[in-house]
Amino acid sequence: MEIDYKNIKVIGFDADDTLWVNETYFREAEVAFGNLLSEYETLNKIDQELYKKEIDNLPLYGYGVKAFILSMVESGLEQSNYNISTKSIEAILNIGKDMLNKPVELLDGVEDVLKILSKKYRLILATKGDLLDQERKLEKSGLTKYFHHIEVLSDKQEVNYCKLLNHLDIKPSEFLMIGNSLKSDVLPLVNIKAHAIHVPFHTTWAHEQVTEKETNGKAYKTISSIKEVVKLIN
Amino acid sequence: MEIDYKNIKVIGFDADDTLWVNETYFREAEVAFGNLLSEYETLNKIDQELYKKEIDNLPLYGYGVKAFILSMVESGLEQSNYNISTKSIEAILNIGKDMLNKPVELLDGVEDVLKILSKKYRLILATKGDLLDQERKLEKSGLTKYFHHIEVLSDKQEVNYCKLLNHLDIKPSEFLMIGNSLKSDVLPLVNIKAHAIHVPFHTTWAHEQVTEKETNGKAYKTISSIKEVVKLIN
Repeated sequence: MEIDYKNIKVIGFDADDTLWVNETYFREAEVAFGNLLSEYETLNKIDQELYKKEIDNLPLYGYGVKAFILSMVESGLEQSNYNISTKSIEAILNIGKDMLNKPVELLDGVEDVLKILSKKYRLILATKGDLLDQERKLEKSGLTKYFHHIEVLSDKQEVNYCKLLNHLDIKPSEFLMIGNSLKSDVLPLVNIKAHAIHVPFHTTWAHEQVTEKETNGKAYKTISSIKEVVKLIN
Repeated sequence: MEIDYKNIKVIGFDADDTLWVNETYFREAEVAFGNLLSEYETLNKIDQELYKKEIDNLPLYGYGVKAFILSMVESGLEQSNYNISTKSIEAILNIGKDMLNKPVELLDGVEDVLKILSKKYRLILATKGDLLDQERKLEKSGLTKYFHHIEVLSDKQEVNYCKLLNHLDIKPSEFLMIGNSLKSDVLPLVNIKAHAIHVPFHTTWAHEQVTEKETNGKAYKTISSIKEVVKLIN
């Protein structure tokens, strides 16, 4: 289907797994967490219970690494029936600290794309992680100069994007979002008549997965590399 | 000293302890934490060590309740020499969850002031807490309608306010910040030639305290109640 991008003024980029590697570090952390609890449960069960705990805590803690650490501690207590050692609790805290201290690994082509697009559009980083963590990653990435500012959204549902557009003082047709998550970066935008381009990452968190029914007939493009954005809209 | 407020276009309000009670809940949480550890140390020492842990973790975790919970867990492990029970670790997590679920207690006069000022100025909420937590408090407070949007700052230093003004596309002389913390809501603004009004709260976190030398000769007003703002600038 033909999509008309000519009114776009502001482009929002998702950060994690769109500009740089992130989900991979969560998967590694889950493996480390599983090893700490391996005397109590199968790795599969440990994973499932941690995921349930994260989802239960989402309304209270929101997204980001700090929320993830707190859910690991709580899940570790419960899954071990409170037999987990205090040294293992400390190890969980350290898994989280290691995640926050990870180097930033840019995805292929990101900087070239930002360099080109920033000449013609106002670029913003639109993320639902922790602000401090995202600022730190942006700083480490060397990409700060391409972005007008960072927008942290407590969630990426239609209502959050409506607030964002209101705050940016632009119409939906003037906004394009680019990201790896159909659920968070694409479908809510299409539903409010804004633009979205989907750039899949090889790993997707279960919470971000959507059914084919949800994507059926929706007006967005999927591209295999962020480098293709330039051909579509520049 | 006479201060000229006539160019102001946007007013930033700090949230915690400016619009609603907050520090009181941290003090209560510290008491509950102290009770959990009272077999290992004096309450005074427990408090001091927790504070040190919070400051050590600030660069990594930033501000807000989730950071505070993580620091309590870590400090509890260390202060008990890893003898703390797993049930007490769970109790620490619950202290944090209780904080996040607290009702919002508005400070006297807040709504009247916002109602009046929102007719003439663009009001924003400028906070360094967790976005989700602050959105939830704003929602519970019933004050959402007076604010254009929420700005979360990872810290409230001059550089963060400069970024904010750039993002709002206004000059320093067009911005007024109102808040309870001299360190976070007043001095950095005055130093970048923006306006600030100080409304003290009865309790101030040690990290937010400043010396008389830092405030000497600085161009800001201190008022005893937020209600007095209207007389100054409306």
